[in-house]
Amino acid sequence: MDYPSKVLAKAVEEISGLPGIGKKSALRLALHLLKQPESQGILLGESLKKLVTDIKYCKNCHNFSDLEICEICSSPKRSNAILCIVEDVRDVMAIENTSKFNGKYLVLGGKISPMEGVGPSQLNIGSIEKKLNEGFLKEIIFALSATMEGDTTAYYLYKKFKNFDVKFSSIARGISVGDELEYADEVSLGRSIMNRLPYNEQD
Amino acid sequence: MDYPSKVLAKAVEEISGLPGIGKKSALRLALHLLKQPESQGILLGESLKKLVTDIKYCKNCHNFSDLEICEICSSPKRSNAILCIVEDVRDVMAIENTSKFNGKYLVLGGKISPMEGVGPSQLNIGSIEKKLNEGFLKEIIFALSATMEGDTTAYYLYKKFKNFDVKFSSIARGISVGDELEYADEVSLGRSIMNRLPYNEQD
Repeated sequence: MDYPSKVLAKAVEEISGLPGIGKKSALRLALHLLKQPESQGILLGESLKKLVTDIKYCKNCHNFSDLEICEICSSPKRSNAILCIVEDVRDVMAIENTSKFNGKYLVLGGKISPMEGVGPSQLNIGSIEKKLNEGFLKEIIFALSATMEGDTTAYYLYKKFKNFDVKFSSIARGISVGDELEYADEVSLGRSIMNRLPYNEQD
Repeated sequence: MDYPSKVLAKAVEEISGLPGIGKKSALRLALHLLKQPESQGILLGESLKKLVTDIKYCKNCHNFSDLEICEICSSPKRSNAILCIVEDVRDVMAIENTSKFNGKYLVLGGKISPMEGVGPSQLNIGSIEKKLNEGFLKEIIFALSATMEGDTTAYYLYKKFKNFDVKFSSIARGISVGDELEYADEVSLGRSIMNRLPYNEQD
């Protein structure tokens, strides 16, 4: 498509570089911005630049942070004995939203995936070892995705660290709250029968 | 949702101000940007700022333009005798893509819509009058949307300018190329029967 203006063409090109946004949506967004007060576009542009230049990662857990050590890692209210290993920053936010976990996190930054060329060396595995060597840890929770790559990653970490004196656990898999049994997939249903819980322990 | 970093929270807030993008998509886009080379985010931010600050509008037709008069208006190859009136810049691009029109455009900047509080005074109607007074115009084409507001706008313009010595026309309405008759809506089908064309004139 021919754009009547070079600044518009450039903006459309850059916006359509985002995932899930094609040229048509990018044009729609650009035209929307042009209809708003100029300040909105400037603020958006500034905050995107700031995002990529100013974002910091916590040195301990590799979560995003405004400080060198993130709020969760530096909080005295949270247990140093439990470490929850997740793939991604989004997973930290998702678990934090449940308010059911009071330990610390470690963001791996991905999962082992030979198909995508991601090996253990690209993940933040050294930080787990550092945590283990500090000696406070009692339990490591694998909160990884329920896929082959997630399972491989958990298994790799378990093999690597099984000689340390810690308990390993994995988040429960089973049918989701609200699911109808007849529509649940067989593997999840099978697992939820195998890992059944005493009735009074549930909440 | 609690974000682990203020720059991230700010970016998510600004991105989710765009139409059709909620907080979750905004977060996904922000995290995508953080995974890319820093330069991509900076370029995107810069081009958005440039878009809203540097965009110019053609003084003649109100299309976007990098110059004071846009390429279409200043082109000697295009006829000054036909003026195509559209609502929006996107419509110019759409018609240009057909390569079937060789006149000039006029971007109204909207359509008369009492529901949305848009009256004739907010549209670029003065520029049509200016064009008419120049005396080159032979035909005005209404290429407005096939809605009540589009029809109202066309009727208003027709009433206002009908004393000038020009022909008025409206783009054809009928069934779209590729449509099956049984699925076409009645109004379009009815119009396409009323406005039937001699068989040899079609291409």
